Amino acid sequence: MIVALLTDFGDSHYVGQMKGVILSNNDAASIVDITHSVPFHSVVSGAWRLLQSYKEFPAGTIFLAVVDPGVGTGRKALAVKSRNYFFVGPDNGLLFSAAKEDGIIESVSLDCEKIDKETGKRRISNTFHGRDIFARAAAIISRTGNILRVGKKNVGMIKLDVLPKKKSGLIVDIDSFGNVTTNILPPGKRKKIKFLIKQREIELKFVKTFADLERNELGALTGSAGTLEIVANQAPASQILKANIGMKLALR
Amino acid sequence: MIVALLTDFGDSHYVGQMKGVILSNNDAASIVDITHSVPFHSVVSGAWRLLQSYKEFPAGTIFLAVVDPGVGTGRKALAVKSRNYFFVGPDNGLLFSAAKEDGIIESVSLDCEKIDKETGKRRISNTFHGRDIFARAAAIISRTGNILRVGKKNVGMIKLDVLPKKKSGLIVDIDSFGNVTTNILPPGKRKKIKFLIKQREIELKFVKTFADLERNELGALTGSAGTLEIVANQAPASQILKANIGMKLALR
Amino acid sequence: MIVALLTDFGDSHYVGQMKGVILSNNDAASIVDITHSVPFHSVVSGAWRLLQSYKEFPAGTIFLAVVDPGVGTGRKALAVKSRNYFFVGPDNGLLFSAAKEDGIIESVSLDCEKIDKETGKRRISNTFHGRDIFARAAAIISRTGNILRVGKKNVGMIKLDVLPKKKSGLIVDIDSFGNVTTNILPPGKRKKIKFLIKQREIELKFVKTFADLERNELGALTGSAGTLEIVANQAPASQILKANIGMKLALR
Repeated sequence: MIVALLTDFGDSHYVGQMKGVILSNNDAASIVDITHSVPFHSVVSGAWRLLQSYKEFPAGTIFLAVVDPGVGTGRKALAVKSRNYFFVGPDNGLLFSAAKEDGIIESVSLDCEKIDKETGKRRISNTFHGRDIFARAAAIISRTGNILRVGKKNVGMIKLDVLPKKKSGLIVDIDSFGNVTTNILPPGKRKKIKFLIKQREIELKFVKTFADLERNELGALTGSAGTLEIVANQAPASQILKANIGMKLALR
Repeated sequence: MIVALLTDFGDSHYVGQMKGVILSNNDAASIVDITHSVPFHSVVSGAWRLLQSYKEFPAGTIFLAVVDPGVGTGRKALAVKSRNYFFVGPDNGLLFSAAKEDGIIESVSLDCEKIDKETGKRRISNTFHGRDIFARAAAIISRTGNILRVGKKNVGMIKLDVLPKKKSGLIVDIDSFGNVTTNILPPGKRKKIKFLIKQREIELKFVKTFADLERNELGALTGSAGTLEIVANQAPASQILKANIGMKLALR
Repeated sequence: MIVALLTDFGDSHYVGQMKGVILSNNDAASIVDITHSVPFHSVVSGAWRLLQSYKEFPAGTIFLAVVDPGVGTGRKALAVKSRNYFFVGPDNGLLFSAAKEDGIIESVSLDCEKIDKETGKRRISNTFHGRDIFARAAAIISRTGNILRVGKKNVGMIKLDVLPKKKSGLIVDIDSFGNVTTNILPPGKRKKIKFLIKQREIELKFVKTFADLERNELGALTGSAGTLEIVANQAPASQILKANIGMKLALR
């Protein structure tokens, strides 16, 4: 069974440790890296990238997603069974949109006693639940297909909604070129698009591609996720806009 | 069957999406990352790194290479069968040198209708053919070993030749330390090497290793690819030379 | 059999070449990336990250570790069999602590003639033994479980000891946020910890988490490896301390 990883750990041995834990608990697991360069502690970006990626994978894939600024505090840890997939990670909204889009069937709060029973006991550090809890839970699910082996039925889940919207949405990602991804769907055919962002209205050319813009000019286009992106030709749109991941914006 | 990936996407979920598409269309595919840090849009560097890597892999490997500045324009998309391997990617020269060195047997222009017939229909974005076209084509080839399942016989291919040369060649890569890789083969034993680059002649010590140079001194050595590299001791040779990937140079 | 890779090559096609060589010599090998972002030429950091990672993997895993500033000089090349694992890499201390902790059973000096006999002859470059020697040795061991197939019995090994210590240790790693990892075990419960570092005594708050420190304040905490880390709240502790990997320090 495929276990697909998405974290904000960068290329680090923390990822390597998680892979070792998975393979030690299910040597038939097939591990796939989605990305480890989610901006540090950006749950919104992690949720968006997971939402964009999960549906490309075969049914049955277990997604192990760790962007976990609340590690060591009281935040819950989750495993979610959706119509076609499994999701494992912290209860901070990271898993919500992908699981909801696919159709949530059941979720559990991870329970270290249950996990210990399956894998043998392990000391839980304060700072690295990815290795100590989540990787073991993902391995058990990849072996059994059963989230009840790793937790107790859950009463709720933090709902961070990054699903595509028609009017009001969020800046859900900023790439290394400063291109700003929103979760707002493109309106019908038109030449200009007006956004409200930080109580300011901005009107942008709605173009097909970067080359339709003057140098440094801001514009909007439909990105590979099918939502609006705000870009600039040969310049970082995020800096021009002073935009951050998580900011609200709306079509006017 | 192995599907080996080489892109300029960095560590991003775009790579993760491509992996998902491959596995969804051939769950027996074995995916290997070669590198995703080809300098952005540098077809020359991508072609060079593919040329250096392909021959290390087992016969039958499918190379899925995406460095694609022309995505969304009219550039063709290719699958190539060579004596021992398969190559899939844009028709911009990226695949040419590796396939030629191995011996090109046949090439096809990718055809989305044929691909849709094999995998089910998929909307093709303007900006991400790696996911929407190339990954599906690679998966089909990994399943069938037959490039005619993904395209129609091709009449030509863009010929970007980065193969090793005796006299006149290119700067084919620059690494993160500023070491400049050429595709020029080392001449016989000698103490100095003269290059012509940007209409300037430069004479460099021909050394075994960095340590044979003074601090900041430029020199030439034979790199791990078996071609000449221009380096400086504890300094970026690329900056000293104002060199860019793709520049021509020649031995004098 | 799993072959797990740890290098300082970054995300580069040099890693891709090594993977190709492994798969060409054992197509049943299952390759796992631990990390490729060990700080360039930092044998101490590489040894530490290997020590932290190896024990998470299933018994029988072959660790192929390449941080090799001495490549092309006379340094030996090693394969080590420990109680549960195999280690392959340069003889510069990189493999020592992990293999010692697990329990060294036997080690060999790699012998290119023996390796050539198993895989066919290969030209050995001066600069890339990872591809030309170590990857082939790891593949042979993954196929045979026998280090005598790749080398001759070894008389010694460079002993770089990064194992956890009670009093006097090293700075073994610095992460991208400037957090300083030591290999010193936390003393019992107390409010302050005194270090001797670069002949200076510093006294730090011993805290649970970053949030217990004022902005820019240095403090000590127990990291996910179970050893002391020196950190600062929202600032790079390494710069405040002018600390480098490999520096000695001691508890007072």
